[in-house]
Amino acid sequence: MPIPAPNLYPPFNIVRLSHVELIVTDLAKSRAFYVDMLGLQVTDEDSEAIYLRAMEERGHHCIVLRKGTEPRARDLGFKLFDDDDLDKAEAFFRAKGLPVDWVDRPFQSRSFRTRDPHGTPLEFYVKMDRLPPIHQQYALYRGVKPLRIDHFNCFSPNVDESVAFYNEIGFRVTEYTEDEESGHLWAAWTHRKGGVHDMAFTNGTGPRLHHTAFWVPTPLNIIDLLDLMSTTGWVDNIERGPGRHGISNAFFLYIRDPDGHRIEIYCSDYQTVDPDLEPIKWDLKDPQRQTLWGAPAPKSWFEEGSLFEGQEPVPAQLKAQPIIAP
Amino acid sequence: MPIPAPNLYPPFNIVRLSHVELIVTDLAKSRAFYVDMLGLQVTDEDSEAIYLRAMEERGHHCIVLRKGTEPRARDLGFKLFDDDDLDKAEAFFRAKGLPVDWVDRPFQSRSFRTRDPHGTPLEFYVKMDRLPPIHQQYALYRGVKPLRIDHFNCFSPNVDESVAFYNEIGFRVTEYTEDEESGHLWAAWTHRKGGVHDMAFTNGTGPRLHHTAFWVPTPLNIIDLLDLMSTTGWVDNIERGPGRHGISNAFFLYIRDPDGHRIEIYCSDYQTVDPDLEPIKWDLKDPQRQTLWGAPAPKSWFEEGSLFEGQEPVPAQLKAQPIIAP
Amino acid sequence: MPIPAPNLYPPFNIVRLSHVELIVTDLAKSRAFYVDMLGLQVTDEDSEAIYLRAMEERGHHCIVLRKGTEPRARDLGFKLFDDDDLDKAEAFFRAKGLPVDWVDRPFQSRSFRTRDPHGTPLEFYVKMDRLPPIHQQYALYRGVKPLRIDHFNCFSPNVDESVAFYNEIGFRVTEYTEDEESGHLWAAWTHRKGGVHDMAFTNGTGPRLHHTAFWVPTPLNIIDLLDLMSTTGWVDNIERGPGRHGISNAFFLYIRDPDGHRIEIYCSDYQTVDPDLEPIKWDLKDPQRQTLWGAPAPKSWFEEGSLFEGQEPVPAQLKAQPIIAP
Amino acid sequence: MPIPAPNLYPPFNIVRLSHVELIVTDLAKSRAFYVDMLGLQVTDEDSEAIYLRAMEERGHHCIVLRKGTEPRARDLGFKLFDDDDLDKAEAFFRAKGLPVDWVDRPFQSRSFRTRDPHGTPLEFYVKMDRLPPIHQQYALYRGVKPLRIDHFNCFSPNVDESVAFYNEIGFRVTEYTEDEESGHLWAAWTHRKGGVHDMAFTNGTGPRLHHTAFWVPTPLNIIDLLDLMSTTGWVDNIERGPGRHGISNAFFLYIRDPDGHRIEIYCSDYQTVDPDLEPIKWDLKDPQRQTLWGAPAPKSWFEEGSLFEGQEPVPAQLKAQPIIAP
Ligand SMILES: [Ca+2]
Ligand SMILES: [Fe+2]
Ligand SMILES: [Fe+2]
Ligand SMILES: [Fe+2]
Ligand SMILES: [Fe+2]
Repeated sequence: MPIPAPNLYPPFNIVRLSHVELIVTDLAKSRAFYVDMLGLQVTDEDSEAIYLRAMEERGHHCIVLRKGTEPRARDLGFKLFDDDDLDKAEAFFRAKGLPVDWVDRPFQSRSFRTRDPHGTPLEFYVKMDRLPPIHQQYALYRGVKPLRIDHFNCFSPNVDESVAFYNEIGFRVTEYTEDEESGHLWAAWTHRKGGVHDMAFTNGTGPRLHHTAFWVPTPLNIIDLLDLMSTTGWVDNIERGPGRHGISNAFFLYIRDPDGHRIEIYCSDYQTVDPDLEPIKWDLKDPQRQTLWGAPAPKSWFEEGSLFEGQEPVPAQLKAQPIIAP
Repeated sequence: MPIPAPNLYPPFNIVRLSHVELIVTDLAKSRAFYVDMLGLQVTDEDSEAIYLRAMEERGHHCIVLRKGTEPRARDLGFKLFDDDDLDKAEAFFRAKGLPVDWVDRPFQSRSFRTRDPHGTPLEFYVKMDRLPPIHQQYALYRGVKPLRIDHFNCFSPNVDESVAFYNEIGFRVTEYTEDEESGHLWAAWTHRKGGVHDMAFTNGTGPRLHHTAFWVPTPLNIIDLLDLMSTTGWVDNIERGPGRHGISNAFFLYIRDPDGHRIEIYCSDYQTVDPDLEPIKWDLKDPQRQTLWGAPAPKSWFEEGSLFEGQEPVPAQLKAQPIIAP
Repeated sequence: MPIPAPNLYPPFNIVRLSHVELIVTDLAKSRAFYVDMLGLQVTDEDSEAIYLRAMEERGHHCIVLRKGTEPRARDLGFKLFDDDDLDKAEAFFRAKGLPVDWVDRPFQSRSFRTRDPHGTPLEFYVKMDRLPPIHQQYALYRGVKPLRIDHFNCFSPNVDESVAFYNEIGFRVTEYTEDEESGHLWAAWTHRKGGVHDMAFTNGTGPRLHHTAFWVPTPLNIIDLLDLMSTTGWVDNIERGPGRHGISNAFFLYIRDPDGHRIEIYCSDYQTVDPDLEPIKWDLKDPQRQTLWGAPAPKSWFEEGSLFEGQEPVPAQLKAQPIIAP
Repeated sequence: MPIPAPNLYPPFNIVRLSHVELIVTDLAKSRAFYVDMLGLQVTDEDSEAIYLRAMEERGHHCIVLRKGTEPRARDLGFKLFDDDDLDKAEAFFRAKGLPVDWVDRPFQSRSFRTRDPHGTPLEFYVKMDRLPPIHQQYALYRGVKPLRIDHFNCFSPNVDESVAFYNEIGFRVTEYTEDEESGHLWAAWTHRKGGVHDMAFTNGTGPRLHHTAFWVPTPLNIIDLLDLMSTTGWVDNIERGPGRHGISNAFFLYIRDPDGHRIEIYCSDYQTVDPDLEPIKWDLKDPQRQTLWGAPAPKSWFEEGSLFEGQEPVPAQLKAQPIIAP
């Protein structure tokens, strides 16, 4: 097995993925996508940025849309358990020689930015403004009825290295794809919060953000979204799906926002809190790996992703090819 | 509009499509497909044939699987309203110079076989053995939970001619696809029973049976079927979907039986009983015609179909090309 | 069997139930209920009346809300097949000594009002203004996503008599409840359009309108409606359900509008176009008759209904008691 | 707020609830209920006991049915994170003067039994035999498609005391019901694994086991179960629901096994991993507390529960009355 034993006592305690800031070129168009169509709730907005949360979230934001000239992803945000964890995290990254910048983030308490070894920008914090629950205000539900942010998926130029690093800080591998020939990892799914993943890695030119995923109630909500997108001018923004993933067993749909940032709609994976949960291995050549029902992903899905601000990606070291739709 | 005014007072009263006999080369394998996987109920079987019904049907059979050396479709069966209608139907076909053969069909009363002008084999009858209801025996529901046969779709070498003929015998057009350039029909959906169709026609080498469709309760049953097929050895029998049709607005999946006979799983179209219901026109080049969500059908969907026993098909006269998946 | 043989060749051809006018005391409040909450579409409105249609309907209206001082139901509207049928219908009612009043109905062509033998007000017409399809404008779907009007249910002081009369004009019984002791009908479901019913009768002080039902896509839409009603001030308007009917096998919910008019949300019954469809008999004392899952209906459901304008109801002749929730 | 601050650093680390053993009087009848009807998978069985797991569980068992003369619940089983936690747990219970019995449990490594201060029997362990995944063997899914055990709910004679104790060992309160008059807790929901609860407490004669809950994919699976139970002889075992809980926002159904042990079918609550998640307070007199849609629970739901083996319950100290169905 090419994956490391889980680190059950990591140097600091990450609760879950939390939020990401996306640079978008047309705030109004992005608002139409994320708010009017997808159904996220605006928690703050001005001429430069829109803060959004999903229906069961009480933290202030899971997506920040910020106006800019080039579409970019900024830091992947993670919530830590405790103030001590924030200090321990700082020490950890400094000890690795990775940059630590304490930043002032609206609606958050003490936060710092850093990078993983491939240059992926990360942000850690403990407290974010808490908002009143709205999960039982059913009149507010719209679009796909997004409940919460579920995970990030990143292109990594070396998935073995990514897994080694994130494993060290406590992310536990739930499923992974191996290239049988080389014995290298082609993709991996790793979690903190007890689902299949908070963070996944896909072999490819990276670091780049492959997608950000939202959890929705049932597959029928995804069908409703497809019907809505298809009849409100968003049909070309549907990229892949719907389908059942082999990996994670989740029901999925991939769509692209007006700047090409990829959003996954996702539901129905499984609980992973057991520390002795055995990772599930998939072969890269297994056609049911991507989609249990056998449909391959399109070329764009393997090639396109959001650049991280201020980080040039490098080509993947592993050249193994997945199955791509003709 | 290239379609004729509906004939509201046809020469005889067809209630609905009823059944079809499929010649299959391996009865056991077909039983595994239709009964164990799809969930149809066996109402009679011996070494030569298996009779099947769906969960809300009280007639004896909607599909007959008959052992043979070559996969073929036999007559498309239609239920008439009354014994008088059967005599009127006979007179109608004889007057057209079309063959009428009175046949002895198990579990059916007086039945005759005939042909439409393109040679499509048809069977008409009034009474079929009635069985006790099983629609509330929920322990019997399996697979996709098929409720009833919904429609036939046939390749026609000349859809204008097909529509003209079936319109004359009372089939009412609900939706149709026009080739803008030639002004000819490329496809049409026609009904008797008050749904979008009992009988549809697709331009192509014909006559051939394109597919037979079954109505199921909800899109979730189709997702369940996909999960089941994908994990019980039937993944390669999934041909197209799931998706929402532009035409008919129904949710669909196309699968192939062990001999390649195509079965559609279908739900959620609309009621069409109004005699003044306006047909909906679609352009052949509209990518949302086939699938509202934009995904094109694969090449096999446009080219492959079941031969009717004893009928050589001829190429379509209209050469217009639909949008085909790469 | 206490029900008559179906009259397959009735004196005139009723296509389906079509619409009803409800007198409501506060038009704004009723609009909030039917439009904002339930999701019907306004097709016309002024200070006196609101016309509504459901999502797949192309006729102008299925419900008319008219301002008045007392909540009342007015004529139950039925669409006839052809202009000849309208004349034949007039002749039929006149021959029975029932009143025929030709009326000028907005958005409808020639229409007449009449009464059934118990005094239930009826309206017949052939053509109603046709509107462009909106069933694929998914941005308009709201609330329970009502697709079409499905049926009326009326309190009848003598269900045997009601069935005899409606059978004569072509309504076919699909299911019925017998009082075993007396051998009389306690309730019956009768159809024209090929579903379980266009018109049902329940033993009770009548004639009164028990409820008007709307067809929705799936049981999940009914659950969505319950969540919405419960959190937008309508929780007290939920009367009974959700549940699966024993009779009709449909999934249901009963709610009350601001004036107490009862609306059923309904889906998943079965196709009934076969002229030889055998009616299903239920015993009044069968606890699964009302709700397959065993829950009895509340007292209000058996006792309350909308008065028809200008018609005093009389007590039911049959005194048999159904099972009522404590 | 009558609830204590969460103990984020408890004396030992409980991962989640794990399993319970139920004493049943007729093993074959219980097998029909849990396996044939509900859809749990048998992982071991002999003439004395049946071990069951749900579809996504890889641990050997979540329910053990053991033959006995009187229906009883035995220890509530919890999985600990690490072997050290097991020793720390032992020390904790001994220090409280609570009994610790190391027991030999089939399919589990080192396990001990103890009691909470009210006498509720508890079992702690770290490792259970791990079985191959079956969550993608869709041919095995049956009944309600149970995915995993979700929570226990216990009658407590003093909910304030129960919450204080479980809070001390790290259970975090997510929602609670207060009796406004006395200021005492009437019920509370507490979790370890990141859902609304692993363990809930209801005011009543206790300790007794109120119910054990299973997580299922969607509300439609609960509707399927109701249809199945209603038509396979289990209709009288339906106790309450279906409905949406006010508390937890989950969709639910309560059923009773052949010995009266109560099982909840449950889905769609929310993620609770944030250590700063604010508990939600409900008033005992709020009719939407139990069921968002307003339906009160029946008397049996408030009064009946499973006795724990070897533990006489005592009456609740708090006499406040919930809303009970007439
Ligand atoms: Ca229908
Ligand atoms: Fe993903
Ligand atoms: Fe079709
Ligand atoms: Fe009804
Ligand atoms: Fe519970």
